[in-house]
Amino acid sequence: MKKTTIGIIGAGRIGRLHAENIISFPNVRIKTISDLFIEHVTDWAKTIGIEEVVTKYEDIINDEEIDAIFVCSPTDTHAEIIIAAAIKGKHIFCEKPISFSINETKEVLEAVKEAGVKFQVGFNRRFDRNFLRIHESVKNGVIGEPHIIKITSRDPEPPPVEYIKGSGGLFFDMAIHDFDMARYLVNSEVVEVFSLGANLVDPAIGEVGDIDTAITTLTFANGAIGVIDNSRKAVYGYDQRVEVFGGKGSLTCENDRPTTVEFSTIDGTHKDNLKHFFLERYKEAYIAETFAFIDSIQNDKPLQCEGNDGLQAELIAKAAKQSYIEGRPISIK
Amino acid sequence: MKKTTIGIIGAGRIGRLHAENIISFPNVRIKTISDLFIEHVTDWAKTIGIEEVVTKYEDIINDEEIDAIFVCSPTDTHAEIIIAAAIKGKHIFCEKPISFSINETKEVLEAVKEAGVKFQVGFNRRFDRNFLRIHESVKNGVIGEPHIIKITSRDPEPPPVEYIKGSGGLFFDMAIHDFDMARYLVNSEVVEVFSLGANLVDPAIGEVGDIDTAITTLTFANGAIGVIDNSRKAVYGYDQRVEVFGGKGSLTCENDRPTTVEFSTIDGTHKDNLKHFFLERYKEAYIAETFAFIDSIQNDKPLQCEGNDGLQAELIAKAAKQSYIEGRPISIK
Amino acid sequence: MKKTTIGIIGAGRIGRLHAENIISFPNVRIKTISDLFIEHVTDWAKTIGIEEVVTKYEDIINDEEIDAIFVCSPTDTHAEIIIAAAIKGKHIFCEKPISFSINETKEVLEAVKEAGVKFQVGFNRRFDRNFLRIHESVKNGVIGEPHIIKITSRDPEPPPVEYIKGSGGLFFDMAIHDFDMARYLVNSEVVEVFSLGANLVDPAIGEVGDIDTAITTLTFANGAIGVIDNSRKAVYGYDQRVEVFGGKGSLTCENDRPTTVEFSTIDGTHKDNLKHFFLERYKEAYIAETFAFIDSIQNDKPLQCEGNDGLQAELIAKAAKQSYIEGRPISIK
Amino acid sequence: MKKTTIGIIGAGRIGRLHAENIISFPNVRIKTISDLFIEHVTDWAKTIGIEEVVTKYEDIINDEEIDAIFVCSPTDTHAEIIIAAAIKGKHIFCEKPISFSINETKEVLEAVKEAGVKFQVGFNRRFDRNFLRIHESVKNGVIGEPHIIKITSRDPEPPPVEYIKGSGGLFFDMAIHDFDMARYLVNSEVVEVFSLGANLVDPAIGEVGDIDTAITTLTFANGAIGVIDNSRKAVYGYDQRVEVFGGKGSLTCENDRPTTVEFSTIDGTHKDNLKHFFLERYKEAYIAETFAFIDSIQNDKPLQCEGNDGLQAELIAKAAKQSYIEGRPISIK
Repeated sequence: MKKTTIGIIGAGRIGRLHAENIISFPNVRIKTISDLFIEHVTDWAKTIGIEEVVTKYEDIINDEEIDAIFVCSPTDTHAEIIIAAAIKGKHIFCEKPISFSINETKEVLEAVKEAGVKFQVGFNRRFDRNFLRIHESVKNGVIGEPHIIKITSRDPEPPPVEYIKGSGGLFFDMAIHDFDMARYLVNSEVVEVFSLGANLVDPAIGEVGDIDTAITTLTFANGAIGVIDNSRKAVYGYDQRVEVFGGKGSLTCENDRPTTVEFSTIDGTHKDNLKHFFLERYKEAYIAETFAFIDSIQNDKPLQCEGNDGLQAELIAKAAKQSYIEGRPISIK
Repeated sequence: MKKTTIGIIGAGRIGRLHAENIISFPNVRIKTISDLFIEHVTDWAKTIGIEEVVTKYEDIINDEEIDAIFVCSPTDTHAEIIIAAAIKGKHIFCEKPISFSINETKEVLEAVKEAGVKFQVGFNRRFDRNFLRIHESVKNGVIGEPHIIKITSRDPEPPPVEYIKGSGGLFFDMAIHDFDMARYLVNSEVVEVFSLGANLVDPAIGEVGDIDTAITTLTFANGAIGVIDNSRKAVYGYDQRVEVFGGKGSLTCENDRPTTVEFSTIDGTHKDNLKHFFLERYKEAYIAETFAFIDSIQNDKPLQCEGNDGLQAELIAKAAKQSYIEGRPISIK
Repeated sequence: MKKTTIGIIGAGRIGRLHAENIISFPNVRIKTISDLFIEHVTDWAKTIGIEEVVTKYEDIINDEEIDAIFVCSPTDTHAEIIIAAAIKGKHIFCEKPISFSINETKEVLEAVKEAGVKFQVGFNRRFDRNFLRIHESVKNGVIGEPHIIKITSRDPEPPPVEYIKGSGGLFFDMAIHDFDMARYLVNSEVVEVFSLGANLVDPAIGEVGDIDTAITTLTFANGAIGVIDNSRKAVYGYDQRVEVFGGKGSLTCENDRPTTVEFSTIDGTHKDNLKHFFLERYKEAYIAETFAFIDSIQNDKPLQCEGNDGLQAELIAKAAKQSYIEGRPISIK
Repeated sequence: MKKTTIGIIGAGRIGRLHAENIISFPNVRIKTISDLFIEHVTDWAKTIGIEEVVTKYEDIINDEEIDAIFVCSPTDTHAEIIIAAAIKGKHIFCEKPISFSINETKEVLEAVKEAGVKFQVGFNRRFDRNFLRIHESVKNGVIGEPHIIKITSRDPEPPPVEYIKGSGGLFFDMAIHDFDMARYLVNSEVVEVFSLGANLVDPAIGEVGDIDTAITTLTFANGAIGVIDNSRKAVYGYDQRVEVFGGKGSLTCENDRPTTVEFSTIDGTHKDNLKHFFLERYKEAYIAETFAFIDSIQNDKPLQCEGNDGLQAELIAKAAKQSYIEGRPISIK
């Protein structure tokens, strides 16, 4: 089998994570990684066997040897990069969200469609073994028609306020994963959204115009209803649970913990806290999504998470934000 | 200590349950029970030692020997009975809801206040050991300020459609318990409500103008937000869970099961279903609420669930119903 | 139906417990309770409606009105009382163990057999809903042939050393319940025993010749093997678990806890300790065994725990003690 | 840092597993793998980058470039290979057991001691995150002095009878891991053993002189007592649990499952079976033990599992087998 040659655009935390996962696959080679600031990247890149480090992403896009790219740069650069890469015929893996503008996202989808390249959006949680098991079970009718979906999604601590400023806000930065998860598990489109938001964790988050606590209800095209609750700070760890309830039963999954050990003493029974960090919690899911992307390219299989999934999640995020601001339910056409 | 003499109005399922619980207490005597149809009641009443069975509730209210009454008749008779009993100086335990009309409920509260009698509303779940433990822990600051409350409340199967017709609908008949629970656990008043409703379980329920599936969001005076999900039919049993999440942690409780037994076979690991019926699930809570009422009378202790709690839950139910009908959030003044 | 009239011999903790459970049944009357020291008993007896308090157990045995007796006096008085009562035709419920001497126990069994009276031994745990569920499932073949049984049985704290002196030691006083449970769950007789004992909890227990920690292996007639571990002190509460493992799977049960509440904070996830005391843990089982005894008398049903069950458990206890002392496995013929 | 060059002796299942784990570490190179039958190995070896495949292990031992070897050949070849490799100054990782003969094992230990090389025994379970957490907690005094240790260790299905014939039997082939685990968690030597064995799973196992079900009690030098139960066939999966109980509490760990998903339907609540296979269950532990061995070589750190640990486990296995045959407890001097 021909090796797939890959370029990575953006060598921040998530770009490096993808690189380290990719190199563990056979028949794949990372030729180039690009970043505006390459000083801190060079040594690391050499250690894991990346051949070139460049500052301009165009060097990757114009490289005819490169088959596929991973777009891990800031969100506001995604659209430009993707459109340019699609024209050059590269397959594209893009971190979520595709963009902060629905129109821009639609242009991106148009471009990749025309180019006929593979385009996967980085909703890594779809590849988590717990959520995947629930997705498949719902699809197989284990619980009949879905009636209610509930998603709990809470970070262990808020990101720096500087980051929040440019993040697009809680709905675009954090809840967008949950909006995708809701569609993925219920297997139907969201047609209406209502959001409650609050600033209860840290006043500094409110001062930059964002919220840190939210409850969002969802109405689906198939008649199901759902709710997502988000918090930027769960002191006990990264809290990620879902439940899908239907006419024939219910599917739930509990959080992953570092061990199954229980301590029983005179003070009661104790378990260690949840896995704390998303990179730790979704370690295997990140590997699985990368594998699925490469497998799709090498064996021409359908993608499990494509451009339209990115668009739909953004439409929900936009409606949720508007609902919170205007204090009323918002339809998604 | 002087014996407390009790009269019970209404000998349906819940009236008989209270009677059977009351007779197990020392220093209490049930003198009379009233019901429109006494034929089926007489034998049972004799067995458990109730002295008289009558058809007219006035015989109870006018009996000077009787100190306290339990109002277990249909909701539309509550107000009249309570007001008459209060005038006669009886202490009153009333099943929820107090009435189907906010104004009527307010008149009832006025009457019991003027009469200076004890008036307890039958929110039995407050006395469940799991919810009580969470209530106390929130109050003691174990999780800091509450940010989010989540209540799951699903019946094992819908009541007969005939019952639903006269029930006041899902919000007044079923969710009203959850509205009280939300106030009880968060320890703050609800100021706004938004409800999604759906008819997914049985079309016959929709045909009589009711819903069988609902998600209701709550905004509290103290800034917390919350959500309740209801279904009339959870095939796996009576599903009753709560979570209170705050700045310093989270409190959850799982469903009670008949046993702790796990079966592991080649097909996986299996547990028996949840306790199926509310009388079974809340058996101890029903005893505890009755004990608390009698204890309050005999030792002049404050009530743990009083008239205003009934009123507030009804205000939320009314707003929830309106929100569902009008498709917008409704304020509670 | 004719009322059953009952006499209770011994008004210590367990005698009073049985009395309080018995009076909650219809068609049953406690006429008399006897105790050497009746001063502290009289008031309590009046409150719950016992008619007479006497010092001599003979007054109960010779009372022709009395149908059945509960033997709750010290173990060394059991045999004499039971034999005398059987001659008078009383049905007998006896607390475990029947006696400290195998020969005496055999005489007792002979006497009740000749008299043709009902004779139930107080192995209350057989009536616990968890163990009963496992017993029935094994019997129904859910796990195929049993291969291994494991019982964990640990008290929350040791009894006073004074009590231990007269208790017959860990095997006769504490593990005897587990020996019965093993037979009950595997449904086969124990043919060989090996015991390890240790004095790790409190040297004072060793000084009076007893142990506080033990592991006992069991070989059953049907080929299964088993193990029981005992401790006099589990600081986290009363630890009572069983597992039966067979050719087609495994059955386990977890401890009962006072609530299902979990506390998640920055320190991890926490549950309250186990139910602490055997009277609390087996509250329902005590009621159920009493009900079963009375039901057996009133409706002439077979007993669920009879004289031979007491004898077999004592045979195992005797062998376990000998095995510990001699450091070798001991056969039970 | 200088790269460590490694040779692997034996390309069976476990040899290939170690190879695949080793190549994922930086600064390590597998130069050679040896196996009597190299046909099936060559392609695989090339794919993962092993340079040479040879039939004679001496080619590895005599290669001056090679720093360390992994002994993954059949147990009866271990001693000869280790002694030869030690003389040549190679660091050695050896799969368990070191040999089937205590005297041979002692010679091996003497040889590696004289040669001054690192010698790690493959008790991979010490590196499992659950057992490691318990080991550390016991060491840190979380539960005070250990009183009782319980280990459940059951395979999902028996190996082929052909394998069993040459395996050394249940105690040497299977329970030896549990003997090591007991020493590791209690942190004290075993001084006496008593074993019950049975042939309940498959008569064919009995026909070749082995057992498939066992309970083994342990007495430790520090006064603690313990028990291990083994079965060759747990139909619900690979069952691996431990409990350490002490004066201040208890530590337990549950089995790992593939997901945390629970299915609730009209039939009850269901979880998927346990991880089925030891390679799946201990995947991370195998990686961790390999990392620890290489780390010990490269940074001259102490081993976490050394030659004496192999010897002690074999002494217990020998005593357990003798105890089972002779039906009496056996001392380990």
